[in-house]
Amino acid sequence: MTDLVTVGESMLRLSPPDHQRLEAMDELDVHVAGAESNVAVAAQRLGLDAAWVSKLPDSPLGRRVTSALGNHGVDADVVWDDDARMGTYYVEMAGKPRGTDVIYDRADAAVTSATADELATDRIAEADAFYTSGITPALSETLLETTTDLLELAAENDTTTVFDVNYRSKLWSPAEARDTLEDLFEDIDVLVVAVRDARAVLDREGDAEAIARDLADEFDFDLTLVTRGGEGSLALHEGEAFEQGVFEAEEYDTVGTGDAFVGGFLASWLDGESVPDALEYGAATASLKRTIPGDIALVTPDEVEQVVESGEQSGISR
Amino acid sequence: MTDLVTVGESMLRLSPPDHQRLEAMDELDVHVAGAESNVAVAAQRLGLDAAWVSKLPDSPLGRRVTSALGNHGVDADVVWDDDARMGTYYVEMAGKPRGTDVIYDRADAAVTSATADELATDRIAEADAFYTSGITPALSETLLETTTDLLELAAENDTTTVFDVNYRSKLWSPAEARDTLEDLFEDIDVLVVAVRDARAVLDREGDAEAIARDLADEFDFDLTLVTRGGEGSLALHEGEAFEQGVFEAEEYDTVGTGDAFVGGFLASWLDGESVPDALEYGAATASLKRTIPGDIALVTPDEVEQVVESGEQSGISR
Amino acid sequence: MTDLVTVGESMLRLSPPDHQRLEAMDELDVHVAGAESNVAVAAQRLGLDAAWVSKLPDSPLGRRVTSALGNHGVDADVVWDDDARMGTYYVEMAGKPRGTDVIYDRADAAVTSATADELATDRIAEADAFYTSGITPALSETLLETTTDLLELAAENDTTTVFDVNYRSKLWSPAEARDTLEDLFEDIDVLVVAVRDARAVLDREGDAEAIARDLADEFDFDLTLVTRGGEGSLALHEGEAFEQGVFEAEEYDTVGTGDAFVGGFLASWLDGESVPDALEYGAATASLKRTIPGDIALVTPDEVEQVVESGEQSGISR
Amino acid sequence: MTDLVTVGESMLRLSPPDHQRLEAMDELDVHVAGAESNVAVAAQRLGLDAAWVSKLPDSPLGRRVTSALGNHGVDADVVWDDDARMGTYYVEMAGKPRGTDVIYDRADAAVTSATADELATDRIAEADAFYTSGITPALSETLLETTTDLLELAAENDTTTVFDVNYRSKLWSPAEARDTLEDLFEDIDVLVVAVRDARAVLDREGDAEAIARDLADEFDFDLTLVTRGGEGSLALHEGEAFEQGVFEAEEYDTVGTGDAFVGGFLASWLDGESVPDALEYGAATASLKRTIPGDIALVTPDEVEQVVESGEQSGISR
Amino acid sequence: MTDLVTVGESMLRLSPPDHQRLEAMDELDVHVAGAESNVAVAAQRLGLDAAWVSKLPDSPLGRRVTSALGNHGVDADVVWDDDARMGTYYVEMAGKPRGTDVIYDRADAAVTSATADELATDRIAEADAFYTSGITPALSETLLETTTDLLELAAENDTTTVFDVNYRSKLWSPAEARDTLEDLFEDIDVLVVAVRDARAVLDREGDAEAIARDLADEFDFDLTLVTRGGEGSLALHEGEAFEQGVFEAEEYDTVGTGDAFVGGFLASWLDGESVPDALEYGAATASLKRTIPGDIALVTPDEVEQVVESGEQSGISR
Amino acid sequence: MTDLVTVGESMLRLSPPDHQRLEAMDELDVHVAGAESNVAVAAQRLGLDAAWVSKLPDSPLGRRVTSALGNHGVDADVVWDDDARMGTYYVEMAGKPRGTDVIYDRADAAVTSATADELATDRIAEADAFYTSGITPALSETLLETTTDLLELAAENDTTTVFDVNYRSKLWSPAEARDTLEDLFEDIDVLVVAVRDARAVLDREGDAEAIARDLADEFDFDLTLVTRGGEGSLALHEGEAFEQGVFEAEEYDTVGTGDAFVGGFLASWLDGESVPDALEYGAATASLKRTIPGDIALVTPDEVEQVVESGEQSGISR
Repeated sequence: MTDLVTVGESMLRLSPPDHQRLEAMDELDVHVAGAESNVAVAAQRLGLDAAWVSKLPDSPLGRRVTSALGNHGVDADVVWDDDARMGTYYVEMAGKPRGTDVIYDRADAAVTSATADELATDRIAEADAFYTSGITPALSETLLETTTDLLELAAENDTTTVFDVNYRSKLWSPAEARDTLEDLFEDIDVLVVAVRDARAVLDREGDAEAIARDLADEFDFDLTLVTRGGEGSLALHEGEAFEQGVFEAEEYDTVGTGDAFVGGFLASWLDGESVPDALEYGAATASLKRTIPGDIALVTPDEVEQVVESGEQSGISR
Repeated sequence: MTDLVTVGESMLRLSPPDHQRLEAMDELDVHVAGAESNVAVAAQRLGLDAAWVSKLPDSPLGRRVTSALGNHGVDADVVWDDDARMGTYYVEMAGKPRGTDVIYDRADAAVTSATADELATDRIAEADAFYTSGITPALSETLLETTTDLLELAAENDTTTVFDVNYRSKLWSPAEARDTLEDLFEDIDVLVVAVRDARAVLDREGDAEAIARDLADEFDFDLTLVTRGGEGSLALHEGEAFEQGVFEAEEYDTVGTGDAFVGGFLASWLDGESVPDALEYGAATASLKRTIPGDIALVTPDEVEQVVESGEQSGISR
Repeated sequence: MTDLVTVGESMLRLSPPDHQRLEAMDELDVHVAGAESNVAVAAQRLGLDAAWVSKLPDSPLGRRVTSALGNHGVDADVVWDDDARMGTYYVEMAGKPRGTDVIYDRADAAVTSATADELATDRIAEADAFYTSGITPALSETLLETTTDLLELAAENDTTTVFDVNYRSKLWSPAEARDTLEDLFEDIDVLVVAVRDARAVLDREGDAEAIARDLADEFDFDLTLVTRGGEGSLALHEGEAFEQGVFEAEEYDTVGTGDAFVGGFLASWLDGESVPDALEYGAATASLKRTIPGDIALVTPDEVEQVVESGEQSGISR
Repeated sequence: MTDLVTVGESMLRLSPPDHQRLEAMDELDVHVAGAESNVAVAAQRLGLDAAWVSKLPDSPLGRRVTSALGNHGVDADVVWDDDARMGTYYVEMAGKPRGTDVIYDRADAAVTSATADELATDRIAEADAFYTSGITPALSETLLETTTDLLELAAENDTTTVFDVNYRSKLWSPAEARDTLEDLFEDIDVLVVAVRDARAVLDREGDAEAIARDLADEFDFDLTLVTRGGEGSLALHEGEAFEQGVFEAEEYDTVGTGDAFVGGFLASWLDGESVPDALEYGAATASLKRTIPGDIALVTPDEVEQVVESGEQSGISR
Repeated sequence: MTDLVTVGESMLRLSPPDHQRLEAMDELDVHVAGAESNVAVAAQRLGLDAAWVSKLPDSPLGRRVTSALGNHGVDADVVWDDDARMGTYYVEMAGKPRGTDVIYDRADAAVTSATADELATDRIAEADAFYTSGITPALSETLLETTTDLLELAAENDTTTVFDVNYRSKLWSPAEARDTLEDLFEDIDVLVVAVRDARAVLDREGDAEAIARDLADEFDFDLTLVTRGGEGSLALHEGEAFEQGVFEAEEYDTVGTGDAFVGGFLASWLDGESVPDALEYGAATASLKRTIPGDIALVTPDEVEQVVESGEQSGISR
Repeated sequence: MTDLVTVGESMLRLSPPDHQRLEAMDELDVHVAGAESNVAVAAQRLGLDAAWVSKLPDSPLGRRVTSALGNHGVDADVVWDDDARMGTYYVEMAGKPRGTDVIYDRADAAVTSATADELATDRIAEADAFYTSGITPALSETLLETTTDLLELAAENDTTTVFDVNYRSKLWSPAEARDTLEDLFEDIDVLVVAVRDARAVLDREGDAEAIARDLADEFDFDLTLVTRGGEGSLALHEGEAFEQGVFEAEEYDTVGTGDAFVGGFLASWLDGESVPDALEYGAATASLKRTIPGDIALVTPDEVEQVVESGEQSGISR
């Protein structure tokens, strides 16, 4: 049996090396990236039995994705599409005052036509937990239906549903996102949301705890995780709030930090650890990710535990 | 005034280095490629004043294209599109028994919506010659109309129209291509066609000369160029046939050889040289291209002339 | 159930890029290589369900190996050793008059202490076929015992045993090899041997067919495969000899060609194809391998079938 | 008509990657660099119509320079020299305590023989502004004469003359520089000078404003720009002094920052913006440059405007 | 005559570029590294006549080492071993919270069997100074004997003996190290020890000066150097203590900093400079090393002197 | 004592990787190259004690050269020049129809001012043999005088003088070369000349043997070596002619083949081997060189001997 099933898009991330600009690029580094596959990889590496369920073009480009997940032992259960294209995105990484720039080229990717009928839904029914993010329903009408169907299916089968809001302004407006997401929240057990998305998209106010309490009250989440970037995270579980700081890291590539946090948290929490311990485990995983090139948390349980033990963290506000 | 205006798509060509397979790629080399921009570059480098007219996304990816053409002094007269995507293609280069494999990802590229109204048609009206290829009308309904409009416009303004059949089986069927192209042939002065396309797409029979005579008779071309790969080329002009062999080359990257041939031919012929001299100049340009990485004939007039003088060629069948 | 289980060593192959000499190297390309893992990868990619069973150091270097096999979906069932080292080898690739030079650094690798007790022998008992090569018993006394035990176990469980002689002069002398291997032949169903090893190590005489008949008679093999490098291969099955030529290839990296042949042959033969069809499938797989960097046959069934259909081969002597 | 014409040397900048030392280099990254071509590129990218006028060897090395400027649409109007060499310089980039080390190899470069007679002086006569730097007259006796001639020509034609002192201690002594430059100041409208050069070369005292007033009084400049490295810049115009801070940047390659500042300033000021707005625009351009590899400000007007709006800056002392 | 002879192991250091993890490496950068050869290189580059005496495999891998030392003019006087292997180590460099990880693969390296009889001991007898480190006796029983023999030999010939404790926890326990090293101290003139090793291995207490006095009293060292990482170093000579701070550096690769310090100190001190001047020279050499990729202090005397003169340092506690 | 002293220029060879053209280069590979240093390296690697005597700029660029020679144990006895520049050349390697293109940038290099007075002439007086080539006197008037002085000095001290004509058309005309070289021939014992230079520069006629006899008669050489590219070489010694074929090689980088031949020949002949054996040794060294990147014969005596034994050669015309 699989502990965790994730469903979503995984893309080829194309980024010029050595701070080159896209306009002047002669080479591109290729990575495989996607919130849901990132979470599956982190969870698998940290001890869960994880599967990623999706749809890909039946081409070397599609196989590039499953090959990358195979590196980490994640079971990629994929519908192969003969015609559709592979989603990609271009990333130009830079420091201030430029910041990282992303150009998505994901329209009409194979995954956008994935229906619940064709995906390996039996795996979700049998799993401990099912994870997807707000990116998935934003990608196409079909995927919105699919997301709805899969969350219902999970709920019916007592599979814990975990959902990361992951708002992407290049995919939809805050208003569209709010309307769609709040409909989905009904079938969600664990919500993950960045404090800035809670404010700008979900229209919540107050500090992280206030927001968590507000959301939990309204949608009856079992567990509400609010992330606050460099200021750590907060979990609300059975009425009790737990805060977690950020472990210090020399940053090399910060893309994928949030997914590493969720993957680490789930690896610990689904393994039976307490919410505060799982939060700390997720924060340690996230700090390691920031030192590693690519979107993936290429870490081991030993390394995460060493970070937890080392205890160097900042950002706990109380 | 511009000597030669070309209209068509230019893409990012993404190819893994060092014989890596796409399925295992970690890096991609980036080149800019497109039949019409390749022809413009070769012609400009060899002495013409050339412009490339097209439509591109208003992004670093689109500017990557104009930047590449600027290297060679080609004037890129471009409509910038705020939304549409950049066309790309992946190339895996290999020898026997694999051969070179191409995956196009060009659907919905910015250029597919380019209309004659928005493009810089005044440049065509004022130019000596206008060049496009059979790829352009195959890309979208809009581009088929645009191609028709531009050929008419050129004809009305006594701009010589040059058209390379350039059949691409991944874009349309032979039957579709034949029907469409034969409608366009009416406004075409100079036809370039590979002998295998003449047979498989245009349904012609016989050797290169028979095919050239057949096409010239039916469509009343001023000049008909039939290319035969490693066996050279043939020109039919005012009833007289001229054959041209292939200059020997150590092949490093053969993509773009046909465009180099056309660009070299036009640079010489539009400069007033005779058809057989222009054929030889085109063949020499093509042989140099095969030694150069990327799609573009990065050559100088001196180099082409040295090849012509060296005279080492094969493939003349008479 | 697993179709094919292979047991043996897999190493890090370190080779300087761009024809650099080891003495002057500034960089090394890293690949994962080993006869038994190569065969498992080729077989898995071509349709079998393959597992590789071995022992590795519990370190990033050991995980580099399982990660590489995971790319291709091979199930690596590994005993992790806390102390022992990772085997490596250095390769300097060059053409005539140098040829490829190999420096092994595999003494005391983790695998050399692997016993049948600790390895996942149940997988062999349940598999259709078990493959190892003459490299395995040559690596250590322990591995010789383990090889003997595993072949017996397979025989007892009606798992087809496939053995490639794969003589390595840097590991043992011809006399040592012959004595050891002939003891093992008793439990072997399918023998693969290069004609030069049959002569120099196994002391056989005559052409490939004579050698195959001689070996089959003495050791009662169900199937005897004799490979002849550029001159193709020969199979002897139920008294009938089948010859197979070599498909032409532009060679880029020839290391691993023999393993690709065996992997391709087994993928076809264990899937129920006839011996001559499987031979042809193996030969096509081997020709593709020669165009690909690294030791692994990074191919698809479609590609192998296209080579088979293209039919360009040489070296059939009848 | 061209808005801005610059005249000066452009060189090949050769720098070992990855912090390698020149003594141990195996590779060199190649960029094209020169104060005057850098200013032309920045100005062209930011909206002006800019030309660079110079002399280059008629070789692939010379064409490497015009090709690089063509990337950005700068019109390179060049005299081609059949014999003379290409100027180069080697750069070793390092942090404290080493700092960046430069080895010039520019003696006898083609440009050192460039006379006003052979250069495209008509372009200067017709332009809005003409820019050169103190490097140009320091390179050769001939170029000193040429600089004098061109400044006079510009003055006669009401072309605004912009001059950056840009003192290079490897080219001449402070005393030589002062004598020569002060003779040139007569025909200069806009002077740019680093505060340290104003002190060490031009023998001025006091703070930036005092220096600006002193120079403007003596030489009757319309506009005097004093740059102060990390502490920002000051402009004196019609008796009024304007200060500008530095926008914060994560530095990747600081070479060319000063040229980016001047290019940005001119793009804004020649387009009709006020002096303080142009100063801010130049400072924003300079901050972006520091994040980009190579000497060139590979930026867009949008990016510069975003930096201006973001407003994060330091170093304003009042 | 040679000024300084060092004896010890030199290895191939294999490290993945660009922050890649070993588990995911596709390439490895190759450097040559070893405390004793690092010290010899630094000393030779800074003016001494230095030789490195050791044993290497007679292979391209062994020659890779002597070739690297030849770059800097160090005389490598080596016993060539036909059979033994080359020691290597893998380094993964990362910032917090990971830190740099090292996997040694040096067991059974050629040097581990080196006896005093076969090494070029005459060079030690004739040299001004002999240097080795605590790594050497930790590598094998044979090398412990050899170290003992060489120190005795040096003592008998009035060659100054310099010994750096250089404790490596992956080679032996603190208790083993202490017992062994204290036996060796009898023949040592100059001891170098990190303050953390003095405490954890040699069981000393107090601050650097107290430790130096304690050790000097017990073992009668002529000179005792205690290094304190980022807090500088302290020398005790003829009862007088001298402190030295650390020159600031932008760190790029900190491996080999300690060896650079010792090499710089010896170059100055053996050349007749005072202890405090030599300390400062060593500290300056160490600061430069931190800016340079690889283990080696690729510096010149001019550069070291400029750092000394610049005087920017921190960490002097009094 | 040194067996062989060579005197001449060594340059930085800058070549774009991967068949890039110089006009489009982004990177340059750096090698150290020069006929006389190449010969010294080959000879040293093959058993002689060789020194290279020259003049270099006192800069990291000059040290790059001595560092490269140190790799191979060649003693570089160099005058360091504070001001003069480093000679470089750019190489673009390509196959037919382009061929390899070289742009020299060696005017005013430090070596061009080297006089016999400042060079380490005592080493020549004490050596067995002295080697230089026709490039040296072509570089400057000073070096012509120096060459004359050194050949006289060698003659006076019974040092065998070896001279390779090595005509370079970019340095002087055939007539200039002939006049100058024939004056030098008086003091030369061993002449090496390519058959095409003997014809085009020295005005000789007939086949290799006729040419050798003609030159030996006129200038009284002890040994005359005539090289014929792909057709092998011929030696005339004491009236007897010896022919040598070419050992087959897969060519990767042919630059430096002639120097490898001379270095191999001298290593054997100065070690006492017969002329025909030394010829064969030189031919084997040259064939290995062609498989190796860079100008230098990075080979071992074992490898050369294996090629000699393998005996695969072509081009012996008798």
